[in-house]
Amino acid sequence: MSTESNSKPTVAFIGLGIMGAPMAANLVKAGFDVVGYNRSEAAVQALVAQGGRGAGSTAEAVRDADIVITMLPDSPDVEQVITSVLEHSHPGQLVIDMSTIRPDVSRSIAAAAAKVGVRVLDAPVSGGEAGAIEGNLSIMVGGAEADFEAARPVFEAVGSTIVHVGPHGAGQTVKAANQLIVAGNIQLLAEAVVFLESAGVDLERGLRVLGGGLAGSTVLNRKSEAMRTRNFAPGFRLALHHKDMGIVTAAAREAGVVIPLGSAVAQLIGALVARGDGQLDHSALLKLTEELSGRTTD
Amino acid sequence: MSTESNSKPTVAFIGLGIMGAPMAANLVKAGFDVVGYNRSEAAVQALVAQGGRGAGSTAEAVRDADIVITMLPDSPDVEQVITSVLEHSHPGQLVIDMSTIRPDVSRSIAAAAAKVGVRVLDAPVSGGEAGAIEGNLSIMVGGAEADFEAARPVFEAVGSTIVHVGPHGAGQTVKAANQLIVAGNIQLLAEAVVFLESAGVDLERGLRVLGGGLAGSTVLNRKSEAMRTRNFAPGFRLALHHKDMGIVTAAAREAGVVIPLGSAVAQLIGALVARGDGQLDHSALLKLTEELSGRTTD
Amino acid sequence: MSTESNSKPTVAFIGLGIMGAPMAANLVKAGFDVVGYNRSEAAVQALVAQGGRGAGSTAEAVRDADIVITMLPDSPDVEQVITSVLEHSHPGQLVIDMSTIRPDVSRSIAAAAAKVGVRVLDAPVSGGEAGAIEGNLSIMVGGAEADFEAARPVFEAVGSTIVHVGPHGAGQTVKAANQLIVAGNIQLLAEAVVFLESAGVDLERGLRVLGGGLAGSTVLNRKSEAMRTRNFAPGFRLALHHKDMGIVTAAAREAGVVIPLGSAVAQLIGALVARGDGQLDHSALLKLTEELSGRTTD
Amino acid sequence: MSTESNSKPTVAFIGLGIMGAPMAANLVKAGFDVVGYNRSEAAVQALVAQGGRGAGSTAEAVRDADIVITMLPDSPDVEQVITSVLEHSHPGQLVIDMSTIRPDVSRSIAAAAAKVGVRVLDAPVSGGEAGAIEGNLSIMVGGAEADFEAARPVFEAVGSTIVHVGPHGAGQTVKAANQLIVAGNIQLLAEAVVFLESAGVDLERGLRVLGGGLAGSTVLNRKSEAMRTRNFAPGFRLALHHKDMGIVTAAAREAGVVIPLGSAVAQLIGALVARGDGQLDHSALLKLTEELSGRTTD
Repeated sequence: MSTESNSKPTVAFIGLGIMGAPMAANLVKAGFDVVGYNRSEAAVQALVAQGGRGAGSTAEAVRDADIVITMLPDSPDVEQVITSVLEHSHPGQLVIDMSTIRPDVSRSIAAAAAKVGVRVLDAPVSGGEAGAIEGNLSIMVGGAEADFEAARPVFEAVGSTIVHVGPHGAGQTVKAANQLIVAGNIQLLAEAVVFLESAGVDLERGLRVLGGGLAGSTVLNRKSEAMRTRNFAPGFRLALHHKDMGIVTAAAREAGVVIPLGSAVAQLIGALVARGDGQLDHSALLKLTEELSGRTTD
Repeated sequence: MSTESNSKPTVAFIGLGIMGAPMAANLVKAGFDVVGYNRSEAAVQALVAQGGRGAGSTAEAVRDADIVITMLPDSPDVEQVITSVLEHSHPGQLVIDMSTIRPDVSRSIAAAAAKVGVRVLDAPVSGGEAGAIEGNLSIMVGGAEADFEAARPVFEAVGSTIVHVGPHGAGQTVKAANQLIVAGNIQLLAEAVVFLESAGVDLERGLRVLGGGLAGSTVLNRKSEAMRTRNFAPGFRLALHHKDMGIVTAAAREAGVVIPLGSAVAQLIGALVARGDGQLDHSALLKLTEELSGRTTD
Repeated sequence: MSTESNSKPTVAFIGLGIMGAPMAANLVKAGFDVVGYNRSEAAVQALVAQGGRGAGSTAEAVRDADIVITMLPDSPDVEQVITSVLEHSHPGQLVIDMSTIRPDVSRSIAAAAAKVGVRVLDAPVSGGEAGAIEGNLSIMVGGAEADFEAARPVFEAVGSTIVHVGPHGAGQTVKAANQLIVAGNIQLLAEAVVFLESAGVDLERGLRVLGGGLAGSTVLNRKSEAMRTRNFAPGFRLALHHKDMGIVTAAAREAGVVIPLGSAVAQLIGALVARGDGQLDHSALLKLTEELSGRTTD
Repeated sequence: MSTESNSKPTVAFIGLGIMGAPMAANLVKAGFDVVGYNRSEAAVQALVAQGGRGAGSTAEAVRDADIVITMLPDSPDVEQVITSVLEHSHPGQLVIDMSTIRPDVSRSIAAAAAKVGVRVLDAPVSGGEAGAIEGNLSIMVGGAEADFEAARPVFEAVGSTIVHVGPHGAGQTVKAANQLIVAGNIQLLAEAVVFLESAGVDLERGLRVLGGGLAGSTVLNRKSEAMRTRNFAPGFRLALHHKDMGIVTAAAREAGVVIPLGSAVAQLIGALVARGDGQLDHSALLKLTEELSGRTTD
């Protein structure tokens, strides 16, 4: 027993929310010694019930950990928690931030960590709550190759597609690019759907032809049904995609990269959130496109 | 022998260009009696060499045909040829326009044909020259169900995905929606590529992750390599996509459908054509996006 | 007396609508011998009551005229009427089309007229119904210098700013540019207004400062009050501006000119018309911008 | 003499750059006791040569001042300096930030200052270097009415249009709205110019007509000549307008306000800066629009 616990590193897991909780649970299942911390005590107790250990503070969680994982809502949360992590960390620790945040913040964190001898990876994920529960997330990792290899067992416990994509910040950049393409593809599909319906096209057949050619996409495969039936239950909420488009536009601006379509769809998502539709699935871009085209039925 | 030739209808094929020539040849191979007409005599002779018959005019081609196919560059060409076809047609003939034109022109043609007892289908294709040669085009068909069924043997000689999508004009609408989505998906991929490269992301790996998730698309699968290597040999030329975006924006405007992304990417394609890049593949949207981001190497 | 009436040319005026009727009346007041024709008889009678003469057809109106003016809703109307005018015209006549239409149609008309020895000017106006009644329209004229000079007395009877801006089509191009700038300026003001109100800015004071600096414009001077009070009674109706933006986008596309802002505001105007707001003043772009920002009160 | 100098308050002026130096000099001329501080010693000496006093640090400048003015490049500079100002300030002091920064930063500063009993105004200016030298800047002021009145003598020494537009942050919001409208108006003019030239319109005459109607604007009056002659010497540099558009888009996003045209023109300005044209006047939006339309001559 003690042999086995010695053989697996201790992982501090900070942020046991919708994504973090099942990820931490999967680490426990994979045999890691997981010490969880979350602002709300209930989430910590849930982890303990699944075989993890609980900590009363970031400091306590980090103290004896080999690896520290953060899974938090947004850039300011990560900045604040990592500051605390670095205060209590020891040289040689590996910190993996799996939150979706701005690439420049990931780079700043890496620079700050390097000063105290701590190694850092940015490793945002895609695949949503379902992927977190099933342990088959896609993980895009930025940082040093050796650190990526050191973290691989952890990644394999929570994900199935695991790719080292470049230096610090590169993981966040790929995640941002993902959100850019997804938002755009959804909006293009929405424009096509309204256009097809306006001409009396049989939507199911029309989308079938489109899906079989160069217009085919995972968005078309997965979101057409929601659009056809106007069922906008999430899925991935517009409020989160809005946050992510903020990252995309800020990062592109910082890099001097012009993104005309990304910028335009960010405005449309912003409109939906401003109007109070932030809790709908991002396929609800159809709703706005329909209203702009005077085609609402309600 | 005569039995066999009697068993297959006679097809007049008007427009033996890059797409039309191999389509007509495939009809010959499938056993149809094909009478071809083209403005340039050489194209007619090429069809005759492959077993078809030649006609010296639209009138001559149409006279004894059961089915008339038109495959022409743009709306005005189709309007002009169909006017001539209808002058020389006889009631009961089936006219199939396989050109990519404005949906409202298809509807006008159907109305004009109905007055003289001629049945019409709009049946634009996708799949490019390769699909035309191999006989595996996608065909999206608008018109009456019975006429679609009557035309099915002809469609099966030139295509593999054959879908009746709605009333007159619906085929063109689906084709336009296809061009809208494809243009947008290419531009989004271009924005992502420039963004990824600006952050030092390993592009091959980054696109691999993106392709495996919700950002995946046929465009990403087929156009990433061209973008990575900046090889913009066509493929599908920007000049043609520009023509098609003119159809998309005009048809959407006529239908009162708002297409913010479609409209924005139409401007970008227009810019490339205006600058003299019309002969490049549409993946050259990357070239413009790079230049706008100050990232050109030449 | 008869000498004086002889000294003034006979003007055929075709199209006695909201703009045409007061313009024809001003020509009568200026002493011209005006022969009016309109599809609806009532408009012709109204002109006769003001001292003009009536005609029962385009042919009759054109027969003895020195100058023919057309003032019609849109490009197809002008094409049709001018065809009839040219059939009944005689060499040396001067045809002035004062409608707002596509520049390429103006150029086609000029080419067709030249073949039968008829001179043509395109001379669209701005200034609205009020300008037409008061005879102080702005007139932007395309065509030959000599023809412009020959038409000057006519222009001076209906307008106050009269400028020869270039060859055939140039008048329409300037009018289109006018509509592009006006639409954009209104939308920018609308964005500013929603933005200012969202921050609790005193709108009257804020706009006063803006108007005094580089952000000042005639749109700001004339449309701020309508925006502050949400009084969108026309003025210039969105349905007409929508028609004009169709001209702008088509003409820019034909010329290979990229208009990113023009294209974007055309979509917004299209949305308002699609939703049924076509009868509101174009300052109602504020209404859409507010709704997109979740700030509607009703 | 001493009486008069006693009657005027002491003003600490932090940030003696292109704008700050002449503003401080104008305060000296108006009889204020001005203590200047700037990171570079030379700027301080220049102020002393004009009758001001120099300080060696923010702390020293602030110590005995009645009023503290900051005139700094960007939000982070202001945040840093104000933190230092508040450390050394005394209750009752009035701090006026005349920099152009994000409205939310102005609001945060006001909140922080209130905690230590210091009153704050945000008072950004427009009018450029010329306006700063001539003392006729436009000043848009956010904060409490009483503080605005207390600051009025200072404002009157540097500006001619002085308006209290609302609560803390309102000054910055109006300045941001100004930059939004100006950027958009310039781009619309650029689109119109390229469009007019493409049709052979006499540009001087065409713009004259446009300027006389609803399309008229201060931008058209002041920037047409630069556009006609392609003289893009600043004036107001694109790099600065790019910074300001960052403020506009961030503030609009924070407020949930959708700005489709503002967002689009921000992309175009970003492109110019990315390509290395940041040192040109903002009228160089014409340059990009021309290139996108394939109309460059070099």
